[in-house]
Amino acid sequence: MVISEFGRIKGGTITTPLGYQAGAAYAGIKTYSDLFSTDLEKLDVGVILSDVDCTVAGVFTQNSLRSESVRLCEQRITLGKSRGILAVSGCANACVGNQGMIDALQATLLASQKLELDTNDLLFCSTGVIGVELPMALVDKGIGDLKISPEQGHSLATAITTTDTRTKEIAVSFELDGKQICIGGIAKGAAMIHPNMATMLSFVTTDASISNELLDKALHIAVDLSFNMITIDGDTSTNDSVIVMANGASGTPEIQDISEEFDVFQRALNQVCEYLAKEIIRDAEGGTKIIQVNVENAATAEDARLAARTVAGSVLVRTAVYGNDPNWGRILAALGRSGCELREGTLALFVNDICIMEDGMPIPFFKDAVVAAMENSSITFRLDLKLGNHDAIAWSSDMTEEYVRLNSVYTT
Amino acid sequence: MVISEFGRIKGGTITTPLGYQAGAAYAGIKTYSDLFSTDLEKLDVGVILSDVDCTVAGVFTQNSLRSESVRLCEQRITLGKSRGILAVSGCANACVGNQGMIDALQATLLASQKLELDTNDLLFCSTGVIGVELPMALVDKGIGDLKISPEQGHSLATAITTTDTRTKEIAVSFELDGKQICIGGIAKGAAMIHPNMATMLSFVTTDASISNELLDKALHIAVDLSFNMITIDGDTSTNDSVIVMANGASGTPEIQDISEEFDVFQRALNQVCEYLAKEIIRDAEGGTKIIQVNVENAATAEDARLAARTVAGSVLVRTAVYGNDPNWGRILAALGRSGCELREGTLALFVNDICIMEDGMPIPFFKDAVVAAMENSSITFRLDLKLGNHDAIAWSSDMTEEYVRLNSVYTT
Repeated sequence: MVISEFGRIKGGTITTPLGYQAGAAYAGIKTYSDLFSTDLEKLDVGVILSDVDCTVAGVFTQNSLRSESVRLCEQRITLGKSRGILAVSGCANACVGNQGMIDALQATLLASQKLELDTNDLLFCSTGVIGVELPMALVDKGIGDLKISPEQGHSLATAITTTDTRTKEIAVSFELDGKQICIGGIAKGAAMIHPNMATMLSFVTTDASISNELLDKALHIAVDLSFNMITIDGDTSTNDSVIVMANGASGTPEIQDISEEFDVFQRALNQVCEYLAKEIIRDAEGGTKIIQVNVENAATAEDARLAARTVAGSVLVRTAVYGNDPNWGRILAALGRSGCELREGTLALFVNDICIMEDGMPIPFFKDAVVAAMENSSITFRLDLKLGNHDAIAWSSDMTEEYVRLNSVYTT
Repeated sequence: MVISEFGRIKGGTITTPLGYQAGAAYAGIKTYSDLFSTDLEKLDVGVILSDVDCTVAGVFTQNSLRSESVRLCEQRITLGKSRGILAVSGCANACVGNQGMIDALQATLLASQKLELDTNDLLFCSTGVIGVELPMALVDKGIGDLKISPEQGHSLATAITTTDTRTKEIAVSFELDGKQICIGGIAKGAAMIHPNMATMLSFVTTDASISNELLDKALHIAVDLSFNMITIDGDTSTNDSVIVMANGASGTPEIQDISEEFDVFQRALNQVCEYLAKEIIRDAEGGTKIIQVNVENAATAEDARLAARTVAGSVLVRTAVYGNDPNWGRILAALGRSGCELREGTLALFVNDICIMEDGMPIPFFKDAVVAAMENSSITFRLDLKLGNHDAIAWSSDMTEEYVRLNSVYTT
């Protein structure tokens, strides 16, 4: 067996893997985006479709209040196979009582008829305003206007955006025994991004062949390293979903057990998810910088994750980054309240590669150099706890006056 | 036994209860306050002193990184009695290694000598920049300049402030069998305010006589209803402390068991703590409004507290309040991620007294009326979970551009 390292495919998107088509249309559901300065084409209904049945896995919001769209997805994923995903933006289909499930079923039925699929063949995702019923006449019209082709991946990436200012798309490929496998993905994000799946959608496709069980395992691992390690405002949403489909169109043998093939698939999937998660942070409402927090040598893996996410999510850390202030006191205060095991006397803190704290005490540093480092569009805080051997990385964006402005004018 | 209801004493402060004196001086420790627009007198060393030994209780930060000042307080409180508290603002005495305890001991020793007390008679609180050693020469000078009298309560309230724009002071009184009991208190707050004692100090005095055990119990109950239910930016600090002293100078019999006397004392203490906690919110950096979140009929008391604090602390809820936007979707999203038990179909939400959601679905409301209600300086969200009979109230302030500005220019 020969495995080549995977590389990113230029212009790659969700339809780059073999055997996928997409389509998108504008039905008039997404109206509030006028509030935001976006140059994206107006599209609000879309579909990703595999030519053949796929194995499928999903990770969904942990919020107790969840959209009926999410419930329908979860139900249909238990069937073990799917042909694709119908997506609507502008309306979350959440907090609308029983009508939410009726409309979700009806929407997928309409799309299945249009695309000549079986009733249960499509999953359904929605994002947007909550507490408003899906405008089914518009959804119907949008579905009727869908024209699918392998070239429409970018259009679908556009159709799922809400307050995003740009699409988030990637595809990577690697070779297994002379045959190429591709993984493609898209995402939408913006606000309400937080561990445990905030208002974000991500769809990932691959032409690999992989069992449902291993696809599910790989997705959970990838999400825990990526989408669950980003935080913008601490809130999660009713609709967050990450879904991966694998249709086997590459002709490679099915990955059925933990093997070298599985490992390389996992790493490629991790890369796709990490890229998309960081793209969400880079496009965060009002954000000007990406903050990376590396926690090293924590006592447990959970401690490392908790510490990294708490520091990255701290409003005081994020405002300090906005002001180019190497305010290590705030970093330590956030670390201290995270609940992770700590020994004050062993702590070290680095801003990019400049050590500003060792053995729990600040050490003299050239403030101008640190401030200069913080003026970059990307800043890394590295916290070495020196307690064990568990590491984690979390990402966030800085908090700006523009963030407050955007989020106080957003209308119900 | 006759108990009169307690009333607030006009101009009351920490020295209003019988048998207390205070003093404050400026030593030059607090320099960074120049960054903020404060009209408060420059004072940074202060003391509260009882004429006789007090029973004493304290609640301290849960942050894993804590100042040595906090450790010294905790140690001395276990002695069961104290004469008072020395306080320094401008330097937290945190993250300075072993020097922190050496300086804390030295500071209280200097003050004890000045005030002719025993070595262990004083507790010690500090607040301000962390990672900087206490400037002991300045502390010594400040202690030397202290002049104590019963009229200096307001000066002490000023001396403990950092970025506060005003002092927080109150005193209430009630009668027990014809004798008057008084409880007075002061606090400092501003940023980094969050459940489990954020960067805040509060000192409470009373001339009641009460056992250490019951004083400790009463303080924990009062703090759980007040200081632990406010949140500004989610971060806690290394130095948060609430300390209550009882000197028995009222001449009333010692409260030794759970009784009618204890209950009225508890209610008065609750009132003092709630007032001071809300004062901290009203003076929050950049805040323009106080947000109150009432969670009613939760399944458990912990659920009610968790839900109220999560909604009050949501950055998205707080930016929406700033924009006078009755964005119930954000309130529900925060409620949903809080982890409290929920049944979507029974939820009701009121903005002030206007019901905008019932049975988990929005109901038609006059948006102008709700927006008008939200323009008040105080706004109440009431969430009725209809699952049990447990209630809780939490408070926060709105999040504004000014908050971001203040917290991005604050310097390390």
